[in-house]
Amino acid sequence: MNNFEFYSPTEFVFGKNTEERTGELVARYGARRVLLVYGSERIVRTGLLGRVEESLRKAGVDYTLFGGIQPNPTDTMVYEGIRLGKEKQVDMLLAVGGGSVIDTAKAIAAGLAYEGDFWDFYAGTAIVQTALPVGVVLTIPAAGSEGSGNSVITQVSTNKKISLRTPRALRPKFAIMNPELTMTLPPYQTAAGAVDMIAHIQERYFTNTPHTEVTDALSESLLRTIIEVTPKVLASPNDYDARAALMWCGTLAHTGLCGTGNEEDWSSHAIEHELSAFYGVTHGAGLAVIFPAWLTFMADHNVDKVAHYAHQVWGVPATADKRADALEGIARLKAFFHAIGMPTSIAELGIDNFDLELINSHLHVTKGERVGNFIPLNEAHTRQIYEYAVRG
Amino acid sequence: MNNFEFYSPTEFVFGKNTEERTGELVARYGARRVLLVYGSERIVRTGLLGRVEESLRKAGVDYTLFGGIQPNPTDTMVYEGIRLGKEKQVDMLLAVGGGSVIDTAKAIAAGLAYEGDFWDFYAGTAIVQTALPVGVVLTIPAAGSEGSGNSVITQVSTNKKISLRTPRALRPKFAIMNPELTMTLPPYQTAAGAVDMIAHIQERYFTNTPHTEVTDALSESLLRTIIEVTPKVLASPNDYDARAALMWCGTLAHTGLCGTGNEEDWSSHAIEHELSAFYGVTHGAGLAVIFPAWLTFMADHNVDKVAHYAHQVWGVPATADKRADALEGIARLKAFFHAIGMPTSIAELGIDNFDLELINSHLHVTKGERVGNFIPLNEAHTRQIYEYAVRG
Repeated sequence: MNNFEFYSPTEFVFGKNTEERTGELVARYGARRVLLVYGSERIVRTGLLGRVEESLRKAGVDYTLFGGIQPNPTDTMVYEGIRLGKEKQVDMLLAVGGGSVIDTAKAIAAGLAYEGDFWDFYAGTAIVQTALPVGVVLTIPAAGSEGSGNSVITQVSTNKKISLRTPRALRPKFAIMNPELTMTLPPYQTAAGAVDMIAHIQERYFTNTPHTEVTDALSESLLRTIIEVTPKVLASPNDYDARAALMWCGTLAHTGLCGTGNEEDWSSHAIEHELSAFYGVTHGAGLAVIFPAWLTFMADHNVDKVAHYAHQVWGVPATADKRADALEGIARLKAFFHAIGMPTSIAELGIDNFDLELINSHLHVTKGERVGNFIPLNEAHTRQIYEYAVRG
Repeated sequence: MNNFEFYSPTEFVFGKNTEERTGELVARYGARRVLLVYGSERIVRTGLLGRVEESLRKAGVDYTLFGGIQPNPTDTMVYEGIRLGKEKQVDMLLAVGGGSVIDTAKAIAAGLAYEGDFWDFYAGTAIVQTALPVGVVLTIPAAGSEGSGNSVITQVSTNKKISLRTPRALRPKFAIMNPELTMTLPPYQTAAGAVDMIAHIQERYFTNTPHTEVTDALSESLLRTIIEVTPKVLASPNDYDARAALMWCGTLAHTGLCGTGNEEDWSSHAIEHELSAFYGVTHGAGLAVIFPAWLTFMADHNVDKVAHYAHQVWGVPATADKRADALEGIARLKAFFHAIGMPTSIAELGIDNFDLELINSHLHVTKGERVGNFIPLNEAHTRQIYEYAVRG
C-alpha cells in the first residue's frame, strides 16, 4: 500500500424529501446569495426547482438562476457563469443536476475567486488555492462529482476535454441526494451512469501497487452491487431501494476511497474523453465501449489483475489460463453492458464517421506521450485500443 | 435504506513517516498552542514523542505534554486535562495514542469550550455545540476514534462507562496514521484491536432495515479483510502491508460509512462496557466474549441476518436450516477469536468473581429498559446473553 491522503469532507444528506433542506444547508455554510446552476428545464417540469427555490426563500437566501448547462459542459458557459456571479456578487454555487452541472459550478466557483482566466487551472498553469463554496442537489447518479474535488470542462476553441483534480478546494460542502429525483431519468442515462460508476472504480482498481487488499475488497463489493441493482432499476424505475443503492454506489465510487494507497490509471477516461469531445457521445456510453477494449489490451500485457477481476467480480472460475479467464470476464462485462442497453463498439455508439488517426493523435496532443499507469500507453497502444473499440 | 447523513471530514494522512508532518497539519488548522495528550511512556521509548515534538517545534507550535491516560479512560483525567488546557490557553488537542487517548482528548476539547461540567455531555443533559479542534497521531488500530465523532469515558464515582456520539463537533480535523507505529504493539492488544473493528462493523450490520445491499457489501468485504490480515500481522508483526490493511480497516469500520442508511444496534458494546467498567478488561477482549454470546441469542430470535452473515463472511454453505448455519458461523467466529489469542468466555477473560446479577442490573440502570435495536433487549434477554458468555 502506498502512502496516501484521503479527505472527503462533503456532508451527504441522503434520502426522501431531502431537497427541502437545501436552504438550511446553504445557510449552515454561511452563504446568502447563491448562483443556482442547472441544466435542462426538466427540473422545472418535475417541480424540483420550485421546491429548492421555496427552501432557499424560507432560509432567507437570495438566488440567481443560471440554466442551460449541457452534457460535456463547455468553457463558454463557465465564462458566462463567472460574469453573472460577479454581477450578482454571489457567495456560493448551488448545483442542481448531475455531473455536467456540478463540474460547471465548480469551475465558476474557482473562477470567481481568481483574478486570472479560470482556464489556467485546466491548462495546468495555475493551481486552485481557494474557491467559493459549492453545494449540490444531485439528480443524476453517475459522475460522482458531488463527492469529488474534480471537474471536467471542454474548451470549445480547441475541443480539449480536460479533467481538473483538486485535493480540497473544489470538494462540495454538501450534497443532497434524494433517490426519488432519479426515477424520471431515461433508461439510457440511468445505464450510462452505472457504467460511469463502474469505470470510476475500475480506474483505481487496475493498479500495479502490491497489497491492495482493502481497496480490492471495497471495489469488488461496490462493483458487484452496481451489477446487481442496475438491472433492477431499469426493470422497475420506481424501485426506491434499488435507486438508492445505485445512487450511493455512484458517490462512493468517486470520493477517492476506492483508490486509497493505489497508483491509479485513468487511461480509459482519457481515451473516452476524445469520443465525447469530437462526437458528443454520452460519457458513460463511451466508457462502455472503451473499457472492454482497454481490458482486452491488458489481457495481453498485464493479465494478472484482469484475471483476478474476472474471478472476483464476474464469478469466472479460476483456471490455469489467466488470459482465458480474463477474456471470459471481459465477455461477461460486455454482455452486462448489452443487457442494460449500452453499446460496446464504436458503431453501436452511433459514430459513423470515426476517424481513428485523428482521435488518437489528438489524445496524445492533449495528454502527452504517456497515458495511464497500469501500462503506460503510447500512440501505438492507444491505436490498438481504439481498434478493439471499433471491432467491439 | 433509511434516510441518513454521512459526514466524515477528517483528513487522513496515511503511511510511512507521516508523523513528521504533525506540525504542518496542526498549523494548517490554525493552532499555535496544543495540549499533547498521550498514554504510557511507550511513545517516549520508541522515539515517537521526540519526532512529534520536533515536528511541532519546526512548525512553530507550542505544546504542553499531558501523559498517563489509561485504558478505559476516566473523567478524573479529563478534569485534569481541562484544568491544564485552561492554564496553558491551548487552542487544539493533539492525541498521540489509541482510542483511550483520543477519547480523552475529545472530552477535554468539548470541556474547554463549555462553561459547565463536561460530564453534562455524557450524562445527556447538554449537547456539544462546539469544541476545540482535535488532531490525532494514531498508534493503536482498534477503536476507530480517529475517524469518529464519538468518545467513551468512565465516571469513576459511579463506574458508569458512557459513549458520547456527536455528529460533527468531535470529529478529528486530521489523523496521521503510520502503520509502522503499530509494529511494537503486543499481540494481545493487536488482536483485541481487530476484535473491536469487527464489532464496530457488526453493530451496524445486524439491522432490521430492509435493503442494505451497499452497507452489507462494504461490511462483509471489510470483515473478510480483517479476518484475512489479522493472523498475518500476528505471525509477522513487521509485515508493513498487513499492518497497513488492518489499520485502514479499523478506521473505515467506524467512520459511519458501514452504517449509512441502517438502524444500528450497539447492544454488544453496551453489554461489554459493564465488563470493562467493573473488571477493567480490555474492551476488544470483552467484545470477543460478548459478541458471540449476543449472536447465539440472535440465532434463536432473529436468525435471518445471522445466517446470511455466516454464509457471506464465514463461508458457511447455505442449507435449509438457517439456525444451524448461523450457529456454524458463530462457531467459526469463536474459532477465529481463539486462533488470534482472544477469549470467548468470561473465565478466559480472567474474571473469576463475575457477578452476573450485579452487572446485568447495572447495565439497565445505566442504559435504561431497552438495549439495542436488532432485538430490543430487556433484563431477561441480557441475562441470557451474559449466561452464554459465562458458558463460552
